[in-house]
Amino acid sequence: MIREATKEDIPEILRLIQLLAEYEKEPDAVKTTAEDLLRDGFSDKPYFNCLMAEHEGVVRGFALYFYNWSTWEGRPSLYLEDLFVEPEARGSGLGLELLKTLAGIAVEKNCKRFEWSVLDWNQLARDFYHKLGAKHMEGWLPYRMEGEALKRLAEKG
Amino acid sequence: MIREATKEDIPEILRLIQLLAEYEKEPDAVKTTAEDLLRDGFSDKPYFNCLMAEHEGVVRGFALYFYNWSTWEGRPSLYLEDLFVEPEARGSGLGLELLKTLAGIAVEKNCKRFEWSVLDWNQLARDFYHKLGAKHMEGWLPYRMEGEALKRLAEKG
Repeated sequence: MIREATKEDIPEILRLIQLLAEYEKEPDAVKTTAEDLLRDGFSDKPYFNCLMAEHEGVVRGFALYFYNWSTWEGRPSLYLEDLFVEPEARGSGLGLELLKTLAGIAVEKNCKRFEWSVLDWNQLARDFYHKLGAKHMEGWLPYRMEGEALKRLAEKG
Repeated sequence: MIREATKEDIPEILRLIQLLAEYEKEPDAVKTTAEDLLRDGFSDKPYFNCLMAEHEGVVRGFALYFYNWSTWEGRPSLYLEDLFVEPEARGSGLGLELLKTLAGIAVEKNCKRFEWSVLDWNQLARDFYHKLGAKHMEGWLPYRMEGEALKRLAEKG
């Protein structure tokens, strides 16, 4: 069963974010707090949306997403930031159900693209995505500026 | 001079999106119309924000951006979708001014990350970004689902 997250899900969302970080070999990466999720996800103008996946009445997975915008399509794109299903619940179809629900939301919102990023070593996930008809956008490299470099640029005279 | 875009800039934004697509060797990729920009960028709940860059009183560049959200930082990220300065105006510092203004907005909005994508062959841009302290997020691959595959997944029984 897939449903929209509510404020009451915040502890579970936080737990699943942490499990995903561990799976991605970055167990110490998560700085996010319950307050952050409440402020940015459950206010009047949320930065993100979140789906919860339940199996036999227990939360076993989630998907956190938001909207980007394509200057070529002239339409929003649905961007999937995190998708995770607990190892114990794999094979129950929750991952596919989450992706299917997200694709439905994308179509309903007139998004032309459904996008996400995957770690290059995660061949299991990549095979699964390819089988569904997704493609790796070869040639495009993600760049990031943060920390001191970001402050330095902001203050550049 | 850098300023926020208004509705009146839509024809110029459209012209610069097309010039950027040509630079990226995809001259026929732009389906976006003036109506799309008006609806999604200049309504109550816009999907994107846009900065215009002027040189000697004439629009010569633009930057279109929106906010993502990081589940590790618990904060929004500023995502730069498009940045373009006309070839005739390069060397005037408009590109750096746009990036600097965006970094300032990111810091002001409490974003921990300023992110974008670059084509792998665009070494000029990549060198420029590295010099500013940005880094290529190696190991992360962008994936996309669109068209028939997206519809098929949305309707999967």
